[in-house]
Amino acid sequence: MEVILAKQAGFCFGVKRATHLAFEAADKKGETYTLGPIIHSPQVVQRLEEMGVKVLGDVNDADSGTIIIRSHGVAAEELEAAVSKNLEIVDATCPFVKKAQEHVESLSLAGYDVVVVGDADHPEVQGIVSYATGRVYVVGSGEEAAKLPRMAKIGVVAQTTQSFENLKDVVYACLAKGGEIRVYHTICDATAVRQEEAKALASKVDCMIVIGGFNSANTKRLAEVCSELLPRTHHIETASQLDSSWFVGVEKVGVTAGASTPKWLIDEVLDRIAEIDREKIG
Amino acid sequence: MEVILAKQAGFCFGVKRATHLAFEAADKKGETYTLGPIIHSPQVVQRLEEMGVKVLGDVNDADSGTIIIRSHGVAAEELEAAVSKNLEIVDATCPFVKKAQEHVESLSLAGYDVVVVGDADHPEVQGIVSYATGRVYVVGSGEEAAKLPRMAKIGVVAQTTQSFENLKDVVYACLAKGGEIRVYHTICDATAVRQEEAKALASKVDCMIVIGGFNSANTKRLAEVCSELLPRTHHIETASQLDSSWFVGVEKVGVTAGASTPKWLIDEVLDRIAEIDREKIG
Repeated sequence: MEVILAKQAGFCFGVKRATHLAFEAADKKGETYTLGPIIHSPQVVQRLEEMGVKVLGDVNDADSGTIIIRSHGVAAEELEAAVSKNLEIVDATCPFVKKAQEHVESLSLAGYDVVVVGDADHPEVQGIVSYATGRVYVVGSGEEAAKLPRMAKIGVVAQTTQSFENLKDVVYACLAKGGEIRVYHTICDATAVRQEEAKALASKVDCMIVIGGFNSANTKRLAEVCSELLPRTHHIETASQLDSSWFVGVEKVGVTAGASTPKWLIDEVLDRIAEIDREKIG
Repeated sequence: MEVILAKQAGFCFGVKRATHLAFEAADKKGETYTLGPIIHSPQVVQRLEEMGVKVLGDVNDADSGTIIIRSHGVAAEELEAAVSKNLEIVDATCPFVKKAQEHVESLSLAGYDVVVVGDADHPEVQGIVSYATGRVYVVGSGEEAAKLPRMAKIGVVAQTTQSFENLKDVVYACLAKGGEIRVYHTICDATAVRQEEAKALASKVDCMIVIGGFNSANTKRLAEVCSELLPRTHHIETASQLDSSWFVGVEKVGVTAGASTPKWLIDEVLDRIAEIDREKIG
């Protein structure tokens, strides 16, 4: 079998940075915590736990030690609580998410009502929204934005993984709502680039393997877009979930991975596929 | 015949104000000029000329006296020339146009590249554009905006008589061009409201009369939208241009007028239509 690994498989810039900071902090002595899972990869979280890093649901559960702010960022009040409790803070917030948080804060302070384009249940959005000091709305689509009230000055930012089309639809709707609209294009194109590459790959192989956390929104989306083109698409977290029956009659296998999937998990999957291939021949 | 006059026929807010200021200045003693025609109504311009107000093509043609800035505004450098020549200035620029000029200036000073949605040949747009201190582009449509280069910070304003759809299309295109887009909704809805009312009227009468300067863009557009619905639409400047043959077999007549058409011209047209109606019966 020929195995083709997508160029953009695995860690994006923000996740690579967050993971590096977390392992660096774990190497030091002392109590270390992350506020929520550092990234949406259960395997990375488990490795950190084995090194003594505990996942907290609430900043008030830590009284001393080091707290790592995860890649999606946290709410402003949680950060303030960590500061006031005198915890050592390692801020692993993705710099693109940080930018969106800063824009929301400055727009609010400048008197804009803020519209955040994104998924209201996602921790990144909950963090971004918390930086507003005035009125703030989360909308998932242009149709939702059309229901917003009239506002004098509107500031728009997007969750970093939103599609550009969705941002455009929301801006379109907001133009009818106010006299001034200020838009920050806070979308990171890593998600779109990864999806485009995966689609191109899915259209030229017989079987696609998508590696990443079952709790990772971007990995789930990656598996969805591939399976639309190629029903023989499988979403797995680890090599042990590979099934040799998937490769019967397969000549070309495509492999990609979500933005929170570490290289070691991808390597294990590639090794296991090679093993299955040898078993087929043998 | 039943004659129905549109509620929104004639002077808009900005033209009413400009005309009032011009006649007030004309009443005073001394040399008085307008820079270009005060509004796009040859009859109003003629009345002012009869009162001694001269139309200048160039501010340098006046050495003393009072200069009236017309409703469409003038270029920043012309205004500066008038100031430096110590002319008395009556600024009859429409306040909505003034706002657009101010937004262009402040956007430029704040480091934005400016995009003006409008007709590059229109005096209003030429005035607005002149307030930019940095890069500025005029685009007539979303397709034109799509050809703009990439920019870091983009400021968008519109000619006050542009359609809202056109502004939206340009913003849509600009979102792909830069990291921050700031839009001022500088469109005055008088034009749209007038057009909507004229269309409703044209659909329930047998003949439409549209009154206004043949050089007035908004009057020409008004006549266009009416004649699309009702071929028996006539664009006239004065009552003397009415033709009694137009009213043969007509039961209902609709009358509307452009934003630069004075009330006295509308009244003369209504009187003349009543006269034609009496002749029909007699």
